[in-house]
Amino acid sequence: MQPIKAIIFDVFGTLVDWRSSIAHEAQHLLQPLGLRVDWLAFADAWRAQYQPAMEQVRSGQLAFCKLDALHSRNLALVLADLGITLDAATFKQLNLAWHRLDAWPDAAPGLHALRSNYRLAPCSNGNISLMVDLARRNGFAWDAILGAELARDYKPKPEVYLNAASAFDLEPSQTLMVAAHSSDLAAACAVGLRTAFIARPDEYGPNTGELQPGLAVDYAAASVLELARQLGVTSRQQEHSQQ
Amino acid sequence: MQPIKAIIFDVFGTLVDWRSSIAHEAQHLLQPLGLRVDWLAFADAWRAQYQPAMEQVRSGQLAFCKLDALHSRNLALVLADLGITLDAATFKQLNLAWHRLDAWPDAAPGLHALRSNYRLAPCSNGNISLMVDLARRNGFAWDAILGAELARDYKPKPEVYLNAASAFDLEPSQTLMVAAHSSDLAAACAVGLRTAFIARPDEYGPNTGELQPGLAVDYAAASVLELARQLGVTSRQQEHSQQ
Repeated sequence: MQPIKAIIFDVFGTLVDWRSSIAHEAQHLLQPLGLRVDWLAFADAWRAQYQPAMEQVRSGQLAFCKLDALHSRNLALVLADLGITLDAATFKQLNLAWHRLDAWPDAAPGLHALRSNYRLAPCSNGNISLMVDLARRNGFAWDAILGAELARDYKPKPEVYLNAASAFDLEPSQTLMVAAHSSDLAAACAVGLRTAFIARPDEYGPNTGELQPGLAVDYAAASVLELARQLGVTSRQQEHSQQ
Repeated sequence: MQPIKAIIFDVFGTLVDWRSSIAHEAQHLLQPLGLRVDWLAFADAWRAQYQPAMEQVRSGQLAFCKLDALHSRNLALVLADLGITLDAATFKQLNLAWHRLDAWPDAAPGLHALRSNYRLAPCSNGNISLMVDLARRNGFAWDAILGAELARDYKPKPEVYLNAASAFDLEPSQTLMVAAHSSDLAAACAVGLRTAFIARPDEYGPNTGELQPGLAVDYAAASVLELARQLGVTSRQQEHSQQ
C-alpha cells in the first residue's frame, strides 16, 4: 500500500455547516425587508435544488458553469416558490451567502495539524472564489484549490477525484478523500482513492446526518482533529494544551 | 478606475531565481556522477527550450500538458546535445529541480504583506504541483493556484490572464499582474489587467534582466516589498523593525 501524500476534502457539510449559516444569512438579509420565512426550511429548500442543478451539467444538458451560477438559478426557483421578489443587489448578496459559511469548530485546527505532513486541498463542487472566501473566513490553510472548477465537471463524476490526485502528481492510491457523505467516498473509492469518513450528525438538523459510513473506508472519525490523530499527526494546539 | 482586489504573479524570474537554483541542483545531482559541465550554461540551455516547447501548445501542434512534461522533453534535448545519458531516477529527480527553486529574498515577506489587503495567486506557466512545492519551500501564502494548468494553455495567451481574473470573480481591471518581463505585462495589459513591473536585473546573470518596463505600467518597483509599500501596505516585519 503506497503512503498517503495528499488529503482532499469535501467542504459543504464536511468542513462547514452550510445549513445554519445559510439560514442565518437569509434571515439577516431578508428579515429587515419585512419577510417572514422558516429560515432553516429556506436553507433546506435551496440545498434541495443543488443535486438536480449539477445533474444537468453532469449529464451534458448544461455546459459547465461555476456553482455560484447554479446557486443563482436555484435561488430564483426557491424565491419564486415563496412569492418573494428581491432587488438585484440583495439577490446577489444572498446568493453569495455560500461564500460566508462557518466551519465546524474542529475543521481549521484539524487542517492545520494535517498540513505539516500532507498536501491539502478542497475537492468540492464549490467554485474557486467560493473556496477562497471560505478559507479566508475560517482560517483553512490549503496548498491549492482543486475540485469541480479545475475538472470542469461535478462530483461524483470520477474525473473530479482523478483530476485532484493528478494535479498533485499523485496516484489515486496516494490520495485520501475526506467526506461526511458515503456517496462521495464511494465515488472516490471506485477510482482508487483512499477514503476517510467524518461523522457530521447534525448536518441537516440534529441527528439527521450519517453516523457511520455506508461502505468500507480506510478511516472513520468524529472530527478532522480525530482523523489527524488517527493518521499520527498531533496538532500544535493539542501539544500546547498538554504543556 | 476600479480598485484592485487581487494580485497575480509571474513566478519564474519574478519571484524565484530559477537560473542559480537550476545550476545548483544540476551540479548537486550530476557532479557526483563524474560529469563536468558549465552549470549556469546548462541552466540557460534548458531554459532556452522553454518558449519553443510552450509555443507548440499555444499553436495547437501539441495538446496541453503540464510544464513538468515539457521540461522533461527539453531536458532530454539538452542532455543529448551534451552527450549525457542518465538513469531514469536521476533524470526524474533532475527534471523536478524546477520544484526546488529558491525565491528572491523579498518575495515571501512581500507576499505576506500584500496578503492582508489582496487575494493572491500565481499566474505562472508552471503546473499546480510545481507551484505548491515552490510555495512550501519558500513560504509563499497563496489563496489559490491559478495560471496555465487551470486555463489549459500557456502565457502569453490572453485566456490565461482572463481565466485567472475570472477564477477570483473579478473584472480584468480589478486584477493586478506582476512580472519582471515586459512581454508578460503587455499581454496582460492587452486584455485589460492592471500591471506592475518588478526589476530583476540579475535574472540571466549579473545585469542581464530588464531594469525598466518596456511599456506604460501602473506600478514599477525594485522588489515585491517595494510594490507593497507603493500599494500602501506595510509588512508586519517592517512594523516590527520600526518599533
